[in-house]
Amino acid sequence: MSKPLDYENLNENVKKCQYAVRGELYLRASELQKEGKKIIFTNVGNPHALGQKPLTFPRQVIALCQAPFLLDDPNVGLIFPADAIARAKQFLAMTSGGLGAYSDSRGIPGVRKEVAEFIERRDGYPSDPELIFLTDGASKGVMQILNSVIRGPSDGILVPVPQYPLYSASIQLLGGSLVPYFLEETANWGLDINDLRQSVAQARFKGITVRAMVIINPGNPTGQCLSVANLKQIIQFCHQENLVLLGDEVYQQNIYQDERPFISARKVLLDMGPPISKELQLVSFHTVSKGYWGECGQRGGYFEMTNIPPKAVEEIYKVASISLSPNVPGQIFMGLMVNPPKPGDISYDQYVRESKGILESLRRRAHMMTDGFNSCRNVVCAMYSFPQIRLPPRAIEAANKLGKAPDVLYCLRLLEATGISTVPGSDIELDYHGDEDATDPGEKIVNPPWYVVGRVFTDKFINPKSLSDAMGKAWRLGEGMAVRELENNVFIF
Amino acid sequence: MSKPLDYENLNENVKKCQYAVRGELYLRASELQKEGKKIIFTNVGNPHALGQKPLTFPRQVIALCQAPFLLDDPNVGLIFPADAIARAKQFLAMTSGGLGAYSDSRGIPGVRKEVAEFIERRDGYPSDPELIFLTDGASKGVMQILNSVIRGPSDGILVPVPQYPLYSASIQLLGGSLVPYFLEETANWGLDINDLRQSVAQARFKGITVRAMVIINPGNPTGQCLSVANLKQIIQFCHQENLVLLGDEVYQQNIYQDERPFISARKVLLDMGPPISKELQLVSFHTVSKGYWGECGQRGGYFEMTNIPPKAVEEIYKVASISLSPNVPGQIFMGLMVNPPKPGDISYDQYVRESKGILESLRRRAHMMTDGFNSCRNVVCAMYSFPQIRLPPRAIEAANKLGKAPDVLYCLRLLEATGISTVPGSDIELDYHGDEDATDPGEKIVNPPWYVVGRVFTDKFINPKSLSDAMGKAWRLGEGMAVRELENNVFIF
Repeated sequence: MSKPLDYENLNENVKKCQYAVRGELYLRASELQKEGKKIIFTNVGNPHALGQKPLTFPRQVIALCQAPFLLDDPNVGLIFPADAIARAKQFLAMTSGGLGAYSDSRGIPGVRKEVAEFIERRDGYPSDPELIFLTDGASKGVMQILNSVIRGPSDGILVPVPQYPLYSASIQLLGGSLVPYFLEETANWGLDINDLRQSVAQARFKGITVRAMVIINPGNPTGQCLSVANLKQIIQFCHQENLVLLGDEVYQQNIYQDERPFISARKVLLDMGPPISKELQLVSFHTVSKGYWGECGQRGGYFEMTNIPPKAVEEIYKVASISLSPNVPGQIFMGLMVNPPKPGDISYDQYVRESKGILESLRRRAHMMTDGFNSCRNVVCAMYSFPQIRLPPRAIEAANKLGKAPDVLYCLRLLEATGISTVPGSDIELDYHGDEDATDPGEKIVNPPWYVVGRVFTDKFINPKSLSDAMGKAWRLGEGMAVRELENNVFIF
Repeated sequence: MSKPLDYENLNENVKKCQYAVRGELYLRASELQKEGKKIIFTNVGNPHALGQKPLTFPRQVIALCQAPFLLDDPNVGLIFPADAIARAKQFLAMTSGGLGAYSDSRGIPGVRKEVAEFIERRDGYPSDPELIFLTDGASKGVMQILNSVIRGPSDGILVPVPQYPLYSASIQLLGGSLVPYFLEETANWGLDINDLRQSVAQARFKGITVRAMVIINPGNPTGQCLSVANLKQIIQFCHQENLVLLGDEVYQQNIYQDERPFISARKVLLDMGPPISKELQLVSFHTVSKGYWGECGQRGGYFEMTNIPPKAVEEIYKVASISLSPNVPGQIFMGLMVNPPKPGDISYDQYVRESKGILESLRRRAHMMTDGFNSCRNVVCAMYSFPQIRLPPRAIEAANKLGKAPDVLYCLRLLEATGISTVPGSDIELDYHGDEDATDPGEKIVNPPWYVVGRVFTDKFINPKSLSDAMGKAWRLGEGMAVRELENNVFIF
């Protein structure tokens, strides 16, 4: 007799959901690693795992918060600077019971106030700490809000394609419907409002009420920064269609160009003035995991709500309280990120030197990869383009025989040949290359270009030319596949 | 027009779920605190918030892990002992990238190995690290497993009454059905298998398939330790009824008596031998938040799966991976808890002294409260009994007029009068004192005794006699209520 936790008896939404970033490729890479092979994990943004050093000041402060007894140690000044000691005392005074006590389920009030002040400095409009909830990384916040929005399979969420798979996985897990909209590679991965309208109309035709729209800005994995004009259009569109706008803005520090700075959805909304600025519902997400912080393992994040009525905020609070509180050290990191050392502080120079150094290194490496690829035969790429690779018919044939998507097979071969663990593009494009999906405008792509997602973090990373060679080699392994038609073969990080 | 995140449009399961521990009482207490009133929060076990000191050694190790640059500082030995330094190095070597990097979504393999060794030492049977998942506190683990089990409203979960409200709230949020079974106060809060059978039969009659059974051992809030005989009966019952057994064993360190030690469900199961030991599906939960650790804010926990087939484990792994990884500092705490300093280590004596001190203080205070209450007129209580208070008719009348459960009103008055924030018993008894609930055998209680839950953590806590007085005073405030029929009025922590 089959048992409750046998595969066939599990919650169907659990079985249905796919999580590409840690899917088949990741599992195979982990196996190879266990077998002793050196694997470079580029499947998920995890910079410290690839050698990015943590900023010193926040680590000093958190160490002191964890070991408050050090604050009374006469020798503490020998290894900690005075401003880190002062900041640790300040944080401990904000808690009742230090890092070992549950905080309020929304997070420590003092830290939420620091976040509100950061938002005000960034956007030029005041922000209310009561509408800011700290979370265990941005992912948990996104899931919490989607859980409030999604009532069943007829509730749709507009998600950009290509997307970050958190969205497809969460929507599947919560039993809602993903409604894709397409970012245009030829338009610098911007979005066309007419396409958006069409996506909503198609969904409606299938009986789906679209209730929310996700934007990822700066884009993941596409890297684009949305223009103010584009953001305005999006906001107007959401207002007309009565959608809540979910602004995933976790990459706001990762800007590697000067032409188009990051501008938050909230700033654009408030700049537009009433009535829309008082009506459109917006939830914005941020994290300590990205940018020059890259503190993924600490799981710090927040979301800020705009125009969400108090009664709904209370319900979101109630659900947050079931897990008691986000981890407190992660909350402290968020406080430190939004309120770092100031000019005149002892640690200011070091903090600026370190954060600039990391950002410049990220920027330099992004350029290096682009230039490197562009210098390769049969490879072209534009800055911030989402990487694309055209696969030869025999490769596609071989993949079909194995019942795998061609890019999945490609990535597996790349992994075996080079130890580089990536994410196949089809995994994050909602399988619109093949699967019949209720909300799948499959006709959009006739000759699909296949995409591969990876990320580069360290200078030690394999250089672009040898990577390009390795990618070719990957196809030459087994099954008699040959690399042909490699025109426009792009692999960017 | 109403908007997607207006109250009326939220997911019904979000609105339906009640979370007593941070419900009306907690919100009112928070308001009072904001107004400047000193509040003693006993609504949730949060010992550090009430003055319990963290153990020194784990805090030293985590501080060093957070600030790895200190390991090269020539002065580090002045403020950190050598074994903390060695342990920090050992943990850092287990990670790839330190505390700022995402770990595997199941947790750091090295820590899971330490957990497996702890389980083996405790139970006498080997444990497989691949079947241990680290989580952000036990709550997140419980929700993850319930999410896999619950497919819809006709899936039932057996939950003890009185219960810890995590279960009712999570089951409501996930859209399943809670099937209560009753712990018997007169039988030391043990459970009667015949009652259990009846609960399952009643649920079946209503079209509900019971799929899992939760046991909380040691009990929360009842404090009992289940006997081996009782655990055997439970295991046999689950086997017969084809239920997965969920063993919430987070209080395994909180034993204040010597007669009945904690024994894990897993040990009893494996002692029973095949076939049952190879068949019954069991998931056991543990945490760093309880016992003499009390590191609630760090959010460290794990669950261990027994007899769950690999294909189902994979699905649970996949869902865990959507949130990338549990917070890494919390994982280190778990490693430290299951593998603390050993005899001969520099920090061993200090560790033993501190942990014994906390445990003895908890035990002493539990006895003090019991003895104190028993010495009061009209108050009796037995060790580990769940606190019970009989309310006078006029109090119940007054509550009815306000549309509140009598014990909710009582607790609100207690809060206003004394600043002590508790949890009304009716909140954690599934409202079986009134609400019509599909799975509600309301007839069980004719003259409901009302319960109040609180917890005591510090020696500074209000003494039992004055608390008892305060409780009486609470009823004398406003609405002209008088304290009568206080027979068997019990308020234990």
